[in-house]
Amino acid sequence: MPILVMKFGGTSVATLDRIRSAATRVGREVANGYDVIVIVSAMAGETDRLVGLVKETGQFFDAREYDAVVSSGESVSAGLMALILQEMDVPARSWLGWQVPLMTTGAHAAARIERIPTRNILAKFGEGMKVAVVAGFQGIGSDGRVTTLGRGGSDTTAVAFAAAFGGERCDIYTDVDGVYTTDPRISVRARKLDRIAFEEMLELAALGAKVLQSRSVELAMRHGVRLRVLSSFGDPDDGAGTYVCQEEEIVESSVVSGVAYSRDEAKLTLVSVADRPGIAAAIFGPLAAAGVNVDMIVQNVSEEGRTDLTFSCPTDQVARAMRAVEEAKSEGVINFRGLLSDTDVCKVSVVGIGMRSHAGVAAKMFEALARENINIQVITTSEIKISVLIDRKYLELAVQALHDGFELERAT
Amino acid sequence: MPILVMKFGGTSVATLDRIRSAATRVGREVANGYDVIVIVSAMAGETDRLVGLVKETGQFFDAREYDAVVSSGESVSAGLMALILQEMDVPARSWLGWQVPLMTTGAHAAARIERIPTRNILAKFGEGMKVAVVAGFQGIGSDGRVTTLGRGGSDTTAVAFAAAFGGERCDIYTDVDGVYTTDPRISVRARKLDRIAFEEMLELAALGAKVLQSRSVELAMRHGVRLRVLSSFGDPDDGAGTYVCQEEEIVESSVVSGVAYSRDEAKLTLVSVADRPGIAAAIFGPLAAAGVNVDMIVQNVSEEGRTDLTFSCPTDQVARAMRAVEEAKSEGVINFRGLLSDTDVCKVSVVGIGMRSHAGVAAKMFEALARENINIQVITTSEIKISVLIDRKYLELAVQALHDGFELERAT
Repeated sequence: MPILVMKFGGTSVATLDRIRSAATRVGREVANGYDVIVIVSAMAGETDRLVGLVKETGQFFDAREYDAVVSSGESVSAGLMALILQEMDVPARSWLGWQVPLMTTGAHAAARIERIPTRNILAKFGEGMKVAVVAGFQGIGSDGRVTTLGRGGSDTTAVAFAAAFGGERCDIYTDVDGVYTTDPRISVRARKLDRIAFEEMLELAALGAKVLQSRSVELAMRHGVRLRVLSSFGDPDDGAGTYVCQEEEIVESSVVSGVAYSRDEAKLTLVSVADRPGIAAAIFGPLAAAGVNVDMIVQNVSEEGRTDLTFSCPTDQVARAMRAVEEAKSEGVINFRGLLSDTDVCKVSVVGIGMRSHAGVAAKMFEALARENINIQVITTSEIKISVLIDRKYLELAVQALHDGFELERAT
Repeated sequence: MPILVMKFGGTSVATLDRIRSAATRVGREVANGYDVIVIVSAMAGETDRLVGLVKETGQFFDAREYDAVVSSGESVSAGLMALILQEMDVPARSWLGWQVPLMTTGAHAAARIERIPTRNILAKFGEGMKVAVVAGFQGIGSDGRVTTLGRGGSDTTAVAFAAAFGGERCDIYTDVDGVYTTDPRISVRARKLDRIAFEEMLELAALGAKVLQSRSVELAMRHGVRLRVLSSFGDPDDGAGTYVCQEEEIVESSVVSGVAYSRDEAKLTLVSVADRPGIAAAIFGPLAAAGVNVDMIVQNVSEEGRTDLTFSCPTDQVARAMRAVEEAKSEGVINFRGLLSDTDVCKVSVVGIGMRSHAGVAAKMFEALARENINIQVITTSEIKISVLIDRKYLELAVQALHDGFELERAT
């Protein structure tokens, strides 16, 4: 039997009725002749609740215990999905991460999948089981303890299963009917894309478009997994969602495909750093060791041997970042006069594979922002995207200005 | 280091503040020189919520999936307790059932503990860990799937750990400060007992006094575990709770120690059963196979080869029981004219080791109920208890009448 992977996000399993509706979709694919691997997220709100509990215990918590607590949301929804499928006479059972076992690295709270043995589940398919319901997000480290893959990790679980089992397709069911040119809550002119290239999706995901976890896109690209994003609401025969595919499969691509944003950005500035060769390593080494995800980095021109250094990271890592930098200073590894943090910033980006062959995108972007008097604090660019850090209060304005400026409401 | 087992029930870990308060008690015992094994229940209300979700999926659910779902409440509280202990600088880590591994039988949703290997946890104590926080209620069956021990199973987990590790004592922290002569919510004259014999506690627990799961008492009795029930609220220096101990340790025992009750009773009657040798086995065999916990059984005098047979079971097993009996009838195993069920009954019992040497307890009990015009539907007795099934609306009245009748408000 061909294998299909279907992943249901938190809103798609938020209530028993929604799980029933998702299970009906699974049953249709079983009737279509597939052996189905279903990956489930925790019921909507559950992971936030659990993370909240952990964070209330203290600021610097043991990530191993975080994982033990936070992974439980997926255990619950996997069991419930299996029960409901059984109730519909679809032979199903649930698998927890450690039962597969989905082997990961030991990086608790941000583990990476290392290996998914297929034997146990294939044996059950051989015995007539039609659906393996797997708890997303969770795995087991070599220390025998529960690990989690980071927020949105169930997408990665789904793609990894599709890759490991040679799945015909990996369908990601979510609360939107596909990938849009930007967040429709911000711009009413946002348009659904029928196809998007892996590379673009990767940039959009990394930039805060919450449809897919970026690691899942990376994994799908690497293993050639056919990925589809579609809504778990509405008529199953309606629309095919958005295919995430190879660049070659996209006939006509626009210069810019989408505008993404991330509210969860903070800016830190080390004022008057003693500048010398190796200073960047001396600063970012301890930050990496402290698990801070540094994103943008800007270093001003050096004057008289001293320089200002600015970087951004997720807002919830600011305390950790400041502690790491202060410790490096007290240990004499680095030297600076002041340390400033600003959590009132956000990042807005334009993304498109067409940028590779089109000049002038940056200029057009800066003009669109200038017209609205939005000051740009930091700029970074890659081959297919340009990102700016701006004052958070301008986020919606900037997104709309860019969406209009690049005329994204029009299909190419 | 001597080992102490401390178990905290659902109300004792209902919020992070309560977990902190429990952790403070644990810290005191660590300071007293103990290596501590903490067993935690799910946060109050959580198991009910999860059981509710499972039951909503359908009436006849797969107990293996039930276990996967319902066990998650304890995983959460174990992680949180470990985090809070760490925050108080007490070296601690959590253990899920399958990590210990706490090996159980394969009877999902009602598994029995078979083996608790001590090696892993002792090794951690050897490395300086002071507290092993173990998720109560959950284990792993030989099929590699999560099992649970039945409601209240965390008490049994605690006693089993005390037995396996040779714990000096097993302290059960709960929301009451000990074992009472009856439920204080029903009789204002209920009195706290300083000591109670294992046998009495066993009857009380089995009869619905919710302080301890009966299996935990059985296990403690068998392994000579020193068991104590005490409150996790109020001043830790206050009162020692109730010791559950050997009969010999109780200097003066009353004839009756307590009045217990259970609302969760249903009565089923098979009307006009064809009476023949082996008929009881033919009826109760299928009920046992269907997992129905039959409690009281009464068979009327047989007339003309037919008899009425009445038995009681928990209310939530009525559907299952009726199905099993109807199936046995349709298969020709048994024959009866009618099947009646009554879920408006309850069980009230008096318990006391003194009954062994005192006559007239039953008569006194029936008199007390007769004075209140309470009709007795079914009676069963054991060496140290007498139980009656009565109309549920008389429950509170019966408990008070019996508590007063046996003068339980007075210490002996």
